[in-house]
Amino acid sequence: MGERSRGAGVGNPDVPAAGGPAGWLSGLDDEAARRRDAGLRRELRPRAAGDGAVDLAGNDYLGLSQHPEVLAAAADALARYGLGATGSRLVRGSTEAHAALEAGVADLLGAEAALVYSSGYLANMGAVRALAGPGTLLVSDAYNHASIVDGCRNSRAEVVVAPHADVAAVDRILSGRQARPNSGRAGQAAGFSGPPAGRQARPAVVVTESVFSVDGDLAPLAELHATCRRHGALLLVDDAHAVGLLGARGAGAVADAGLSGQPDVVVTVTLSKSFGAAGGVVAGPRALVAKLVDTGRTFIYDTALPPAVAAGALASLELIRDGDALRAESAERAALVGKRLVGHDVSEPAAGVVSVSAPGPAEAVAWAQACRDRGVAVGCFRPPSTPDGRSRLRLTINVGVPRAAFEKALDIIAECAP
Amino acid sequence: MGERSRGAGVGNPDVPAAGGPAGWLSGLDDEAARRRDAGLRRELRPRAAGDGAVDLAGNDYLGLSQHPEVLAAAADALARYGLGATGSRLVRGSTEAHAALEAGVADLLGAEAALVYSSGYLANMGAVRALAGPGTLLVSDAYNHASIVDGCRNSRAEVVVAPHADVAAVDRILSGRQARPNSGRAGQAAGFSGPPAGRQARPAVVVTESVFSVDGDLAPLAELHATCRRHGALLLVDDAHAVGLLGARGAGAVADAGLSGQPDVVVTVTLSKSFGAAGGVVAGPRALVAKLVDTGRTFIYDTALPPAVAAGALASLELIRDGDALRAESAERAALVGKRLVGHDVSEPAAGVVSVSAPGPAEAVAWAQACRDRGVAVGCFRPPSTPDGRSRLRLTINVGVPRAAFEKALDIIAECAP
Ligand SMILES: Cc1ncc(COP(=O)(O)O)c(C=O)c1O
Ligand SMILES: Cc1ncc(COP(=O)(O)O)c(C=O)c1O
Repeated sequence: MGERSRGAGVGNPDVPAAGGPAGWLSGLDDEAARRRDAGLRRELRPRAAGDGAVDLAGNDYLGLSQHPEVLAAAADALARYGLGATGSRLVRGSTEAHAALEAGVADLLGAEAALVYSSGYLANMGAVRALAGPGTLLVSDAYNHASIVDGCRNSRAEVVVAPHADVAAVDRILSGRQARPNSGRAGQAAGFSGPPAGRQARPAVVVTESVFSVDGDLAPLAELHATCRRHGALLLVDDAHAVGLLGARGAGAVADAGLSGQPDVVVTVTLSKSFGAAGGVVAGPRALVAKLVDTGRTFIYDTALPPAVAAGALASLELIRDGDALRAESAERAALVGKRLVGHDVSEPAAGVVSVSAPGPAEAVAWAQACRDRGVAVGCFRPPSTPDGRSRLRLTINVGVPRAAFEKALDIIAECAP
Repeated sequence: MGERSRGAGVGNPDVPAAGGPAGWLSGLDDEAARRRDAGLRRELRPRAAGDGAVDLAGNDYLGLSQHPEVLAAAADALARYGLGATGSRLVRGSTEAHAALEAGVADLLGAEAALVYSSGYLANMGAVRALAGPGTLLVSDAYNHASIVDGCRNSRAEVVVAPHADVAAVDRILSGRQARPNSGRAGQAAGFSGPPAGRQARPAVVVTESVFSVDGDLAPLAELHATCRRHGALLLVDDAHAVGLLGARGAGAVADAGLSGQPDVVVTVTLSKSFGAAGGVVAGPRALVAKLVDTGRTFIYDTALPPAVAAGALASLELIRDGDALRAESAERAALVGKRLVGHDVSEPAAGVVSVSAPGPAEAVAWAQACRDRGVAVGCFRPPSTPDGRSRLRLTINVGVPRAAFEKALDIIAECAP
């Protein structure tokens, strides 16, 4: 996806104006005017198939959304299963395509079990809720994705937002919890009975992305895990932007940090990035998946991912496993960005996302527009969608783009710079 | 989908046991054992393509998930666009397929505008949040779907659950709000400044399904709207189980109640039922859609619906428009259920869902299993997934099933009765 949850500032809806339909509608117009004045209007620009734009904006890192084997697998399942899953996984929507995909993802990630959701958004919401309830301390990285933030809210746990990628801060927060286990906001700690004679601490969960979606930097996973282990806390990692790109066989950043299959690590993945498909996955201990199947609202009460999409994602999985050449090409291109954009403030990409600073929000918008006008699609982020007030372009490495077109696109970006 | 949000009882996750990984894992096992003892384990039974089962469990009411025109449209878009949308609607995922689908749904529903989401679940969450914030009174039907319940929680509005389909109760709740505008739970009404000299009441939103997903009964929409109008409240209707089946051209229950295009009515639809596809839609005033695009977290921060699924849903929309024969067949079959299952307590279906009471939870499970063993897929609901403590079978009318097979299936259900 590629925008941070700090859009929360934008996302906090004004309440509808009272005064009946007319009042509500004029209130909506007033809100729109305020957003326009603040530069917060967004525009949908539908693209045609084969519009010829060079994609440096999407998350199709390995180009698999267009891969012939992926399309063939999806087309075959479409013909065999039909289009929709026709019901939730438990009622009618569970097909052999879903089961095979789950087995494949669990195997790739080195997890005991995996469960497929209709989106990464709902997978994250489901994972957070299964791990944390009233009485849990949830420590959430300040840059976490909106779906994690929504999961935190819905869990009714006490949520403490930790400074971005700051292991020492997480350590301090976890240490603090043992000293004052009932410090949650009133009512939220209900159900927690306190640590029996210092033996048990209050349950705690640390949640983070691995490769962060806007700047592409990598969370200090090994250190976070060591801290969690020391404090008896669980670690939940959203590996959306790393699976396919990092780790042996593209198993992701968690695997790359040596944390595959650790009993206190739970991983979520989206199938909408390197897989070039759609959907989400939670991977972890078998007993966790059983809990999600029995009690997870965003799993039980949602129509299953279309079987054709699941089948396409499974074909992608096989290409990811054998994708060392794709990963090498991605790494080469990532290194190229900084070289071609000399003189700009370019982030050091951990995987397929690079950010390039812009002087201000207006300049960022104009820069992205100029690129688009010359046939290069790039992302553009500015406050309040950025957590730090900086405006930037977000570039993604898509190895499905021919190398020459990619290099030309970098030149165009440089030429369009404000 | 077909299960009620009362699964909330089940869905409330126990907090993870403290005590590190071992404690957490053994805690998960303990929870599983408790669910097993309470009869709350659920089982995924993946189906093969063409498993031959007669489908009276899914929500593919018009059989469109298998329709050749739908499959052809999806296959064509798959070849042209690739599998995944590769990004959020705002970044890279908005295609002409999405735009055409939105125009078509808005036209069918008689709404000014429509916005497509990756699921009905996220569409409902987005709609509730856009209409209600801190300071809003949200009146939610007791039988509403989990996605509406999650939207209510995330909105931070004051939520009052109204007895099922009880217009008088809704009227009382809305009347009460004007007398005591600041009666929300502490903190939740913050930001609401009180009605200026009796001129304006506190903003209020009434949210309901139209055809309810478990029993298939229809909400009193016209009366609810009249009540809302009198009180200056908005009406949000989840028309998931009625679009395609009710109203002229299958425009749904809101249209059938004469409420199309009313400025104080917002409609959500899922594309996973009559459309035989996947995804969700919010339809309403143009200014509302602008607000969702600018500020809606479940829209902005989520990968778009795969273009092939959008294209398939658009083909379904055309078949729905011209689907009077399909609707006539559905109505005939719905009338047949009660006749074939004489002696059973069969609900009066408003559209494509019929419920049949079972003596108790164990009997319901055994009944559904016996049907499945004889090749008939039926839904089975029991507490705590039912809001009233009753256990029942849930049957759906799928006109894609050949008529003879459908009638035979009813006989099998009768023969398997406890
Ligand atoms: C880090 C991260 N997590 C979760 C998601 C949600 O996944 P999906 O788009 O598949 O719903 C996204 C992007 O959309 C993301 O960037
Ligand atoms: C009434 C109702 N609303 C919303 C949903 C959610 O839609 P989706 O399954 O497309 O996410 C469902 C079923 O799943 C439903 O039955």
